[in-house]
Amino acid sequence: MFTPSGFKFAGVHCKIKRKRKDLGIIFSEVPCVAAGVFTTNVVKAAPVIYDMEILKKNSNGIRAVVVNSGVANACTGEQGMINARRMAEKTAEELGVPVESVLVSSTGVIGVQLPMDKVENGIEEAVKVLSDDPLPFAEAIMTTDTKVKMHSTRVTIDGKEITVLGIAKGSGMIHPNMATMLSFITTDAKISEEALKKLLKLSVDDSYNMIDVDGDTSTNDMVIVLANGLAGNTTIQPETDGFWKLYEAVHEVNQVLAEKIVEDGEGATKVIEAHVVNAPDMKSARLIARSIVSSNLVKTAVYGEDANWGRIIAAAGYSGAAFDPNKLDLFFESEAGRIKVAENGQGVPFDEEEAKKILSEKKIKIILDMKQGKEAAKAWGCDLTEKYVEINGRYRT
Amino acid sequence: MFTPSGFKFAGVHCKIKRKRKDLGIIFSEVPCVAAGVFTTNVVKAAPVIYDMEILKKNSNGIRAVVVNSGVANACTGEQGMINARRMAEKTAEELGVPVESVLVSSTGVIGVQLPMDKVENGIEEAVKVLSDDPLPFAEAIMTTDTKVKMHSTRVTIDGKEITVLGIAKGSGMIHPNMATMLSFITTDAKISEEALKKLLKLSVDDSYNMIDVDGDTSTNDMVIVLANGLAGNTTIQPETDGFWKLYEAVHEVNQVLAEKIVEDGEGATKVIEAHVVNAPDMKSARLIARSIVSSNLVKTAVYGEDANWGRIIAAAGYSGAAFDPNKLDLFFESEAGRIKVAENGQGVPFDEEEAKKILSEKKIKIILDMKQGKEAAKAWGCDLTEKYVEINGRYRT
Repeated sequence: MFTPSGFKFAGVHCKIKRKRKDLGIIFSEVPCVAAGVFTTNVVKAAPVIYDMEILKKNSNGIRAVVVNSGVANACTGEQGMINARRMAEKTAEELGVPVESVLVSSTGVIGVQLPMDKVENGIEEAVKVLSDDPLPFAEAIMTTDTKVKMHSTRVTIDGKEITVLGIAKGSGMIHPNMATMLSFITTDAKISEEALKKLLKLSVDDSYNMIDVDGDTSTNDMVIVLANGLAGNTTIQPETDGFWKLYEAVHEVNQVLAEKIVEDGEGATKVIEAHVVNAPDMKSARLIARSIVSSNLVKTAVYGEDANWGRIIAAAGYSGAAFDPNKLDLFFESEAGRIKVAENGQGVPFDEEEAKKILSEKKIKIILDMKQGKEAAKAWGCDLTEKYVEINGRYRT
Repeated sequence: MFTPSGFKFAGVHCKIKRKRKDLGIIFSEVPCVAAGVFTTNVVKAAPVIYDMEILKKNSNGIRAVVVNSGVANACTGEQGMINARRMAEKTAEELGVPVESVLVSSTGVIGVQLPMDKVENGIEEAVKVLSDDPLPFAEAIMTTDTKVKMHSTRVTIDGKEITVLGIAKGSGMIHPNMATMLSFITTDAKISEEALKKLLKLSVDDSYNMIDVDGDTSTNDMVIVLANGLAGNTTIQPETDGFWKLYEAVHEVNQVLAEKIVEDGEGATKVIEAHVVNAPDMKSARLIARSIVSSNLVKTAVYGEDANWGRIIAAAGYSGAAFDPNKLDLFFESEAGRIKVAENGQGVPFDEEEAKKILSEKKIKIILDMKQGKEAAKAWGCDLTEKYVEINGRYRT
């Protein structure tokens, strides 16, 4: 794992959760330009409301992010806002930085107030153990995640080596009341505020916004990117060569993390990738790709390794996109091969045994060739299993 | 079961399916005024396309509906359209009525052509056994439905006794590739074309459009109402007293049938009713009620008898409606009692044992008091169980 210059990480166990790490800090030695994308849910957790405000006021002076798991600080009213602010204050005090340079994030049970004594102790502990190793932070933000989710990459811009590191958590709205997809991207690139915002928005639209586990949008989702400029490149401006190079690097990180999230979806046994090609427009391509990976009937069919293509065509049909259904060709693909199952909107004869073999792999691609335009989009989801029902039906009680 | 004057019914086994009845006919002795509401899926089955055309041309001269189960006649291209038309022609021939007076409907596997020899034999058989008993028809349109779905009621308008009978099928998009909610309403009321259309639209918006099993909108959904006028009342015009009386009767039938559909949802053990009250507007009320009953996380929580209210608030939040989350009060209610779980968008202490008892009943009401307006809406769904996954993951293969 590459770590960008000037960033430190920590993760500790402050006893919000019984055993596992539950409080983490990312710290930059110098102020960062920052951008964020937040949940579209009308019901926003306190840290989401808090951070949106901070980024409005101080998006080029961010020094740290403090995150807890175990309690989401959502549906917690005024006390929740006070607690979110206090998390930032305490972190700022311990780090010796201004309070408005600290972002806050939470994930866990909805409707419970944060145990602030534990949180404050955790912050003290975490600041003491800050280091170059991002792993403890990645562990501290996990809830029912079964795997740590990190990815890093390097790119040369302007003769300078730039590092991008992303750390994420989420397996959909996995936990009963554990409803969060969080992702924190750090980079030592030097970039303007405007360029960073654009770059993040572009990348999120084709990564985190194209994944589905159970169709439930959380109250706490956030993606934050911090760029501290220590790589020493000339400031990257929108739409320049450097911009697109950094975009590629950040986007690689985001796509890898997004895919890791669906791979770790609750109860999931397979990743489903819907690839819509030759669509009439980008919006339709995205709507259709998302609709396919979000359909319970597609998810259960993939779980059952059943080449049940009618469900895929039906999901495209109710996606909200307008198109000609009589032009659609449909394929299943995996490491075991590729098979055409429909042509011009109608079924074609195929070998059920071969289809079964293709669907028995861990990653299943569904390729929908719309033959009515030039645009394309990919979305990722996981299958729906008895285990998902078990986990989500039985957890809290 | 009351049967409206002048209607005859039949259901036979023509061997599209292995054992159970699979072809049904509704026949009216005199021409009916008819109205229909059809799937919004871009991918429409051949019978849907065919009927939309017929109702445009001849909505006051309908004599019969012919329905098969086992094959949906969807994603079947030109041959599918030829077969839909042939079903109407054969039925018209056997009944001695004009071809444009016959509507067609299908439900079953997507992407397979209808075995027309069997269908035609079935039509011949069915016409021979037409009778006052609607039960064989109700049986013939079932796919994985475990229960027959019929309801009838009577109302006096204009001094005349008017009967409304509805027959439906569906348990969501139950079957892999068996994707249909069908409902056929017959009445002997005399009503203008315009009034019948309005009445059906109004009622469908608060009944079939407010139910969810698995979020998958089928290619074959249709609701058809036939009014033959034999009750002898003066023709009902829009927005009159008679209109509202007939609306009440039709709506009772539609709501009962809609609820029977979710009760029979694949693998379902409970019915969930979301009742949104004091909403800022009707559109928001409907969006929120539907979002709650469609959430996989709400469905699994109800299945697990877990008073996991954060998931409900979150589902309201991502419904697409705009509202103030800090005003929401939330209650669970069943035959075992009623409990408040949240107030002003925050949790309140409640007895977990009492909540468990309330949630252990077969029908669970979720009441969301938004305290920000006067509008209300109800939606119905079912829980999500391991059995749903089993049925939909394993069926076709």
